[in-house]
Amino acid sequence: MKIILSKEIGFCFGVKKAVEIAQKVLVTDNQEVYMLGCLIHNPQVMEMFQKKGAKIAYNIQEIPENSTIITRAHGVSPSELQEAAKKRLKVINTICPYVKKVQEVAKYLATNNYFIVIFGDKKHPEIKAIMDTIYQNAEVIEQVNDLKEMKYHKKIGLISQTTKNINDYKKISFYLLEKTEELRIFNTICKATTKRQASALELSSQVDIMLVIGGKESANTSRLVEICRNQGVKTQHIERTEELDYQWFKPQYTVGITSGASTPDWVIEEVINKIREWYN
Amino acid sequence: MKIILSKEIGFCFGVKKAVEIAQKVLVTDNQEVYMLGCLIHNPQVMEMFQKKGAKIAYNIQEIPENSTIITRAHGVSPSELQEAAKKRLKVINTICPYVKKVQEVAKYLATNNYFIVIFGDKKHPEIKAIMDTIYQNAEVIEQVNDLKEMKYHKKIGLISQTTKNINDYKKISFYLLEKTEELRIFNTICKATTKRQASALELSSQVDIMLVIGGKESANTSRLVEICRNQGVKTQHIERTEELDYQWFKPQYTVGITSGASTPDWVIEEVINKIREWYN
Repeated sequence: MKIILSKEIGFCFGVKKAVEIAQKVLVTDNQEVYMLGCLIHNPQVMEMFQKKGAKIAYNIQEIPENSTIITRAHGVSPSELQEAAKKRLKVINTICPYVKKVQEVAKYLATNNYFIVIFGDKKHPEIKAIMDTIYQNAEVIEQVNDLKEMKYHKKIGLISQTTKNINDYKKISFYLLEKTEELRIFNTICKATTKRQASALELSSQVDIMLVIGGKESANTSRLVEICRNQGVKTQHIERTEELDYQWFKPQYTVGITSGASTPDWVIEEVINKIREWYN
Repeated sequence: MKIILSKEIGFCFGVKKAVEIAQKVLVTDNQEVYMLGCLIHNPQVMEMFQKKGAKIAYNIQEIPENSTIITRAHGVSPSELQEAAKKRLKVINTICPYVKKVQEVAKYLATNNYFIVIFGDKKHPEIKAIMDTIYQNAEVIEQVNDLKEMKYHKKIGLISQTTKNINDYKKISFYLLEKTEELRIFNTICKATTKRQASALELSSQVDIMLVIGGKESANTSRLVEICRNQGVKTQHIERTEELDYQWFKPQYTVGITSGASTPDWVIEEVINKIREWYN
């Protein structure tokens, strides 16, 4: 059996940075350390943090005063920061610089009276934090169809969740042009995401099965699965080695492997070892 | 034979305004009146102006000092205006307000350091005047293919000739998004143009032959011809009644008629009368 890894695999820059910051805090901080939701959308990494003493809280109310909190790589909202300040929490903000950029652009567009269209997943923390950053008319679009009902606006600013697909984003922009006099589009999709998606797409045309390794909650991982499936190749999304099924493979198969941006190398290695164990 | 006129036909707002201004000047001005190139791209109207005493000059050098000049509805360039001032010409500027808007947007984008992409015909006076308005990096794109060689720019501003097709404009914007971090698109296509094109498209699906009446130099007329032909209907572009050919028609035909934005009603009526003469 032949296994080919995607050229773009493992932690992205933003995740790597967030994980490093969190690990340092967990080693050096003497008091209790809380994480506000998932630092990154990978269960194994979150389990590792918990083993090292981190506690997970899903809102600020749960956290005792004066504690240390580490906030998500996907960003924290201004209202959460305000609440944290009221409770005198020591905030370690691990926001990815690319996500921060989207928040800044959103703020700029709001200040300049653009109607803001955000291409993203309504329930994703990155989008929730952006919506909380701007205090004005804005709409989150999950797919082109959501645009049908949109009214005409003199000026529209368009931004995207960092992990969206560039071609889908282009389609959104295509339909928006007739709804406005000025369409100002910021390409806020992170370049590493675009590269990772392109590599997965390229690989999926050369293999018999694609394995996408990453958290079930991870937006960028789900997008990789979607891209490979759209290419027509048999694709399995697994979070853990235990989910692997012997019957997915055949000895003569070429297996392609890619991962979400928050999947650690050790999980990828474990998956490869398991397949090798079966088929070598 | 059935003849159906397009819902949008005859002079557009900008042409009507320019023709009215010119007629008034020709009646009231006592000295020689020059037109700088074609006021509008319609030969019959230009012939009418010449009969009323207007002289046509193709550059400022030809015009005697202190004369009155009427400049094009498609706009006059800043360098032409400077030359005119040197010769103490009295300038009657008939620029269409929508064309003026494109010049203003181009200037704004240039001042704000955008690389400017203009979707338009390189040799059209509207585009030449815009290119002369901005003194910086800019590129005129006539079709999507022209974008292939385009380099990456941090900020791109996109504008269009007022008479371009909105769907082609969308395609241009689609390809530009990957060439930049910020794409700022102004929908400078005049709404009357978009409506006229949509009406022609609608009509062309209901008839056996489409007649598009308008100047051979008229960009918006050429676009109408293109749109009808792309729809698969037999389409004839005529400038004058004399160009009509008896053999194009059959008694059982339904004939669709549309016109460019600079075609006067009297020319359209003449064409209809000629067909009626043959086939009634």
